[in-house]
Amino acid sequence: MRPSNAPRRRMFRPMALVAAMVAAGTLFASTEDGPKRPTDFQHEYLANAMLVSKEPNSTGLITGTHLIYVNGVGLSRFKRGGSTAYPDGTVLVDDIRNFSIVDGTYQQADRKFLTVMVKDSKKYASTGGWGFQAWVGGDPTKPIVTDSTKQCFGCHAPKQTNDYTYSTYLH
Amino acid sequence: MRPSNAPRRRMFRPMALVAAMVAAGTLFASTEDGPKRPTDFQHEYLANAMLVSKEPNSTGLITGTHLIYVNGVGLSRFKRGGSTAYPDGTVLVDDIRNFSIVDGTYQQADRKFLTVMVKDSKKYASTGGWGFQAWVGGDPTKPIVTDSTKQCFGCHAPKQTNDYTYSTYLH
Repeated sequence: MRPSNAPRRRMFRPMALVAAMVAAGTLFASTEDGPKRPTDFQHEYLANAMLVSKEPNSTGLITGTHLIYVNGVGLSRFKRGGSTAYPDGTVLVDDIRNFSIVDGTYQQADRKFLTVMVKDSKKYASTGGWGFQAWVGGDPTKPIVTDSTKQCFGCHAPKQTNDYTYSTYLH
Repeated sequence: MRPSNAPRRRMFRPMALVAAMVAAGTLFASTEDGPKRPTDFQHEYLANAMLVSKEPNSTGLITGTHLIYVNGVGLSRFKRGGSTAYPDGTVLVDDIRNFSIVDGTYQQADRKFLTVMVKDSKKYASTGGWGFQAWVGGDPTKPIVTDSTKQCFGCHAPKQTNDYTYSTYLH
């Protein structure tokens, strides 16, 4: 549990099973019929920026600079907040980067993972209407999600009141 | 001096004289005929994200989450890099935010300052073609730059080979 005075967590949850998958040799194995790797997300709205400096930590997130974008389809819902569902076609991307540290200044570096949530309420009905995928280094040939229910949705399910997302709007 | 093995600094320099100006009672005094407070910058391209966790530090930047955007006019030059000048109309914004810390995770919070560089090679010829301004909390009624040569350009002048800017392109 996080302390009661902690700020709202505004993030995607990590790919908790990455290490286990590497060990099991299942990386880049056949993946689900899930989202494709987005290309223009850096031209979308930056919904949230955070830096995770160590693992493990109370958020469960992997270490890195997390830059979370929401596309135009989901933007008005993102800004409005509340419990209504995001419209189909919403895309949320977490651009997770390594960082360098110089005297207390953390600077973003190369890409570590790219993760995505795509809303399709029918296709992905079993996982809250969200399709999940993640790519090592953002490489479209290196997807790592083979079971989004276990690898992704488990951590998003508690956020049903925000349509299974963590990010909230900051002006 | 920064150590020779430090990564390139990719940032705007801070408003070094803010504290002195507050002490002198000159805050929000008559400012230069400089850039206006931008409004849609969060829909532009995120050029750089970094977190400055303490002051003082070797970068000279103020503490906060720094989110630096480049508008469409300057984007191709930003991506190309090199020593050529940015085109007139380029806008660079540093959205500087406070942050909260939960178990090593730094989450962006409310806005601390909004700083801007606007390229107009004639109007701002004396400061490398760049007009500078900054607003406390992003409030358009609270500009703080009254002498951009002293408050801003002094720290940008050494970067003449990158048209007086620090940010460089990361894919």
